[in-house]
Amino acid sequence: MKIGIFDSGLGGLTVARAIVDTLPEYDMIYFGDTARTPYGSKSRETVIQYACENTELLIKKGAELIVMACNTAASVATEVLRQKYDLPIFEVITPAASLVASFQNTHRVGIIGTRATINSNVYTDKISKDRPDIQVYAVPCPLLVPLVEEGWIDKPETRMIVKKYLHPLKVRQIDTLILACTHYPILKPIIQKKIGRRVRVIDSALAVSHQLFLYFKENDLILKKDQKGSCQFYVSDITPYFEKIAQSIFKRKIPLEVASTASS
Amino acid sequence: MKIGIFDSGLGGLTVARAIVDTLPEYDMIYFGDTARTPYGSKSRETVIQYACENTELLIKKGAELIVMACNTAASVATEVLRQKYDLPIFEVITPAASLVASFQNTHRVGIIGTRATINSNVYTDKISKDRPDIQVYAVPCPLLVPLVEEGWIDKPETRMIVKKYLHPLKVRQIDTLILACTHYPILKPIIQKKIGRRVRVIDSALAVSHQLFLYFKENDLILKKDQKGSCQFYVSDITPYFEKIAQSIFKRKIPLEVASTASS
Repeated sequence: MKIGIFDSGLGGLTVARAIVDTLPEYDMIYFGDTARTPYGSKSRETVIQYACENTELLIKKGAELIVMACNTAASVATEVLRQKYDLPIFEVITPAASLVASFQNTHRVGIIGTRATINSNVYTDKISKDRPDIQVYAVPCPLLVPLVEEGWIDKPETRMIVKKYLHPLKVRQIDTLILACTHYPILKPIIQKKIGRRVRVIDSALAVSHQLFLYFKENDLILKKDQKGSCQFYVSDITPYFEKIAQSIFKRKIPLEVASTASS
Repeated sequence: MKIGIFDSGLGGLTVARAIVDTLPEYDMIYFGDTARTPYGSKSRETVIQYACENTELLIKKGAELIVMACNTAASVATEVLRQKYDLPIFEVITPAASLVASFQNTHRVGIIGTRATINSNVYTDKISKDRPDIQVYAVPCPLLVPLVEEGWIDKPETRMIVKKYLHPLKVRQIDTLILACTHYPILKPIIQKKIGRRVRVIDSALAVSHQLFLYFKENDLILKKDQKGSCQFYVSDITPYFEKIAQSIFKRKIPLEVASTASS
């Protein structure tokens, strides 16, 4: 079983990292659409088109299971992908939402993500369906992706911007915060500090890798731990800068290769 | 003569605005590649491909003259476009560089732009060719585009980031600063304040519209002032947010229509 993971760019490497750590015995192919990144402020139709093309590229390269490591794509394209392609499609939203709904002492949940993810209302709908008693407050934070991509992880400007974005959630006294964008785990220390220590911060990368682990276990797909799968990393555009960022997110030097989708 | 203008997104509307103000009697078509914006951190090859596709789209729509209103595209794709297409190609770099070289009391020039523009060294090369006595200092400012696109024009965080980016240029005591990105004129008041009042700040949108005016005059193309040309605005992706930003940059309500390039 070869796991295919795609993202709008390099942020999804946080998900790839979590999956490789959880299921190291499987082969993994990653595709980052760096030629058209970011997706977060683009329209529903455009993001669906890109998600289909990325899936087709991964299938061509041998993927037998797809993980959408991009909240924006997951928020608008999941249904289309499941109808169109005959292989398991995982996404980063349901695992995080159902994890949060399982916390009995959770009553006020904050969600931060891109404009497209927040406007889709997917997280709010999923959580409210399971737990209508939970109040959900969602805030788009479009500048966090460029800040992470610039490597401005611990700069005072980044801390100020995080504080400004989190302010409305702090006022609402949330008890749980979902990082609904694969770039945000990189800012988790600042986010945790600004939102307060007593707030539980949920990283969708860890939620989806755990869901994948359970799926593999239920289907008797867990291999012997002494086997080690291969990892391949493709991007639709490459620069020395992208290589540097990829390495810092994946926490290991990784060889990026260029691959093109139907229209990238 | 129909003027075709393209940009990676909506920032080039500052150039379109300046051209419409200077040559209101001509028809103008604008294309913003919002489905693949931004170009500034992408590779040379990818940006050249996008620039060719944008030019072909404008030609199909009747453009008889092309203005690349995107510094990133201009910095890497000008030669390719001039070889490939048989119509006048204008860009935003040469006019600003030659304007600066004409200032006899200029000796220390700062340039701010995207990573791709700065890495191309085009401004430095052009200025140094005319005026080897001028010292040029170039600084990439990749976060300014997302800040403008978020409408964070006068926020304290934006002021801090502008100050941080301009610091190395302030230390060098520049006398002239080129805004080598079409988004930056929107931040001109903050930039002027942070770099200091005695520094001359050059907006490439005004430089290119003036060059176009001179070209039209030399070629006896200036029409009667009582005629008024049409304006059309195309984008490769549309959202309500893009419409809002377009309006705020162009300073007028403008109808955006969707158009696709060969691969967008």
